[in-house]
Amino acid sequence: MLKAREIALALGAGRTTPRAVLETCLAAIAARDADVRAFCALDVAAVRATAEGDFAGTALAGLPFAVKDIIDTRDLPTAYGSPIFAGHRPRADAPVVGQARRAGGLLLGKTVTTELAFLKPSETRNPRRLTHSPGGSSSGSAAAVAAGMVPFAIGTQTGGSVIRPASYCGVTGYKPTYRLLPALGMKTFSWHLDTMGLFGAGVEDVAFVASALTGRDLSIERFGTAPRIGVLATARDGAASADAHGALSAAARAAAAAGARVVALTLPPELEAADAVHGTIQDFEAALALMDEVTHHRDLLSDGIRTHLEQAAAITPEAYDEARRIGKRGRHALGDLFGQVDALLTFSAPGTAPEGFSSTGSPMFNRLWTLMGCPTVNITGLSGADGLPMGVQLVGRFGRDQAALSAAALVERAIAA
Amino acid sequence: MLKAREIALALGAGRTTPRAVLETCLAAIAARDADVRAFCALDVAAVRATAEGDFAGTALAGLPFAVKDIIDTRDLPTAYGSPIFAGHRPRADAPVVGQARRAGGLLLGKTVTTELAFLKPSETRNPRRLTHSPGGSSSGSAAAVAAGMVPFAIGTQTGGSVIRPASYCGVTGYKPTYRLLPALGMKTFSWHLDTMGLFGAGVEDVAFVASALTGRDLSIERFGTAPRIGVLATARDGAASADAHGALSAAARAAAAAGARVVALTLPPELEAADAVHGTIQDFEAALALMDEVTHHRDLLSDGIRTHLEQAAAITPEAYDEARRIGKRGRHALGDLFGQVDALLTFSAPGTAPEGFSSTGSPMFNRLWTLMGCPTVNITGLSGADGLPMGVQLVGRFGRDQAALSAAALVERAIAA
Repeated sequence: MLKAREIALALGAGRTTPRAVLETCLAAIAARDADVRAFCALDVAAVRATAEGDFAGTALAGLPFAVKDIIDTRDLPTAYGSPIFAGHRPRADAPVVGQARRAGGLLLGKTVTTELAFLKPSETRNPRRLTHSPGGSSSGSAAAVAAGMVPFAIGTQTGGSVIRPASYCGVTGYKPTYRLLPALGMKTFSWHLDTMGLFGAGVEDVAFVASALTGRDLSIERFGTAPRIGVLATARDGAASADAHGALSAAARAAAAAGARVVALTLPPELEAADAVHGTIQDFEAALALMDEVTHHRDLLSDGIRTHLEQAAAITPEAYDEARRIGKRGRHALGDLFGQVDALLTFSAPGTAPEGFSSTGSPMFNRLWTLMGCPTVNITGLSGADGLPMGVQLVGRFGRDQAALSAAALVERAIAA
Repeated sequence: MLKAREIALALGAGRTTPRAVLETCLAAIAARDADVRAFCALDVAAVRATAEGDFAGTALAGLPFAVKDIIDTRDLPTAYGSPIFAGHRPRADAPVVGQARRAGGLLLGKTVTTELAFLKPSETRNPRRLTHSPGGSSSGSAAAVAAGMVPFAIGTQTGGSVIRPASYCGVTGYKPTYRLLPALGMKTFSWHLDTMGLFGAGVEDVAFVASALTGRDLSIERFGTAPRIGVLATARDGAASADAHGALSAAARAAAAAGARVVALTLPPELEAADAVHGTIQDFEAALALMDEVTHHRDLLSDGIRTHLEQAAAITPEAYDEARRIGKRGRHALGDLFGQVDALLTFSAPGTAPEGFSSTGSPMFNRLWTLMGCPTVNITGLSGADGLPMGVQLVGRFGRDQAALSAAALVERAIAA
């Protein structure tokens, strides 16, 4: 994989050029994307021309990046993974794309999303094993980074669309605190849940990129005192495979060996209740957000999403309001939990990447954290019995992204050691 | 003015037809819009054809409505009040437009917004006195309802863009609880503040329309026990004119005479502090939301908004985060305040509509409530020494829109009595 931070620093120091880095990316795409199918829009001549521009004084210094095709770009088509929007040309870049360009990022291309960022599997293959799913909905962004086609990519998560594909593809996925990155200029599915996220090789790479985009200091800090990490037991742990349990135990042991104070915690009932209402909030909002598509483009929707949205339209405002209240109680309970620990460690996914392409896998271990809006990181370095990557998920406190990334980096180093 | 509820009930009962109501609207537009300039897009032939459709079983039953041109419509151009978007044709209706059509609303046309819903005065005139400002940024929506051109209109508020023009034009303006109406498919200025709102003749009209759009019961209830209404003193009251003070006192006296328990309250320091940081949150987000326009369309922005956004880009994430924390403390203090009263009564605007067109007036008495996200209603029926309308603003508890509308209806009835 291409290390975003290292390459950006080399670009800034003039040890390499944007054009040289771009050619490395294009070579990887030429070599592998016919099989992986991570990219859905790429203008090689245009990006080569842009690479000749002046990136002096910028943090990313000409570093190439890719953008999930659920996000608007002014100079590349944006189809939201749906034939309804085939050839659609947005008028403007999404703010997050503007932030990346302003920071000296070089937009390489658009990466495949599932249909409207929902569950229908896309044509993308897992670069770790082409017979397996890359996960979804940010399939192309995770696969492009895993295949060494681009140093970082932007995706989105409404249920588990950043952390799950990151775990399946063996890349670092970072879902920042809700709205740390502006969720504008994208095809909304659920406005209380849709969250922009980043994919990179390692934790320091996504932290470096997030700092460059936002102007915030999210760089990795060493802890003065050993961080307290809670390994979380939930009502859903029975659905996690031996691979997932093994990875979580290995990560916890490694963190303890590296000096972290690791404690066992059980998810409080208020948070189990919040987990159960994620779908009510997501679907009530999706039925409104996608009303135009259901009303005017029924035949261009897949059966799965059309049926799902038609059922979603039956959710009552009262059920939605009650789900929002349960979510709020969950956020209070999570605040109390973070009085005991600095970070939580849990499963990134139920197992390694599923074989075949009938499903993008389950967001069951991610959706609660999307609803809570707190930062989460998929940590790489472990694998399952099938030899495929098996990530672990670190959950941080709302608004404390630097601490979450720093704790994730500690666990990542501990696993590597 | 056209009474939305009465007309919708007459339509539902077959006592009139959508075409007949539409022709009444079109006649008012033909008679007055050359002077008022409320509409910026109107397709008479198309809307006449649509009026012949079947609205059976819908709540609005073919009731015409207008939409602020900051909101996307699939069959009318949407320019966001900016030459950057001249002739722009969105791919989809905004969800709130979809909700209105689903409820049997007949989209009559698009109404003038100020440039990107900011402060630059538009070409719209105040139908109550053409030499005066209709306010902004929902200038056309307020003016169209005031001039009897349409029974209801949709607008948006980020500072005071619903309540202020409603007060100046003498119409009821209703800013629902944050996100009660989905703020999607619109040109975002500030995602924590932008709020969809409604304009109508009276409180029962906006309550009826809001119920039809959302499927929630927001109809006016009579209070079992006399409601407690707090008349609010704030640090900004010195900026309110004698007209504004007179209207607030008259409304309070009328409410008391109607049996409400009226008490004097002073805005707590936590809420004064929150009022002071509205601009920091709005502008930090606007600099991101409108980055593409500033970067790629500088010359098509007015000097005022360009300068404002360039200065806004200098607001640090730390200043923004602190402003968000101050806003959160304000929401807690407001919750305590609503332990003492059912509703608050305050100024809708510093005075009656300003003469001339150098300014759209000040949102100084509205911005705090937009930041708090709580429902607010401009109540009509009073006027200033110049004979122009002078509204009063009722503020309700977050998420308690039916109670807020019911309290506003009580005050409205009391003023009329």
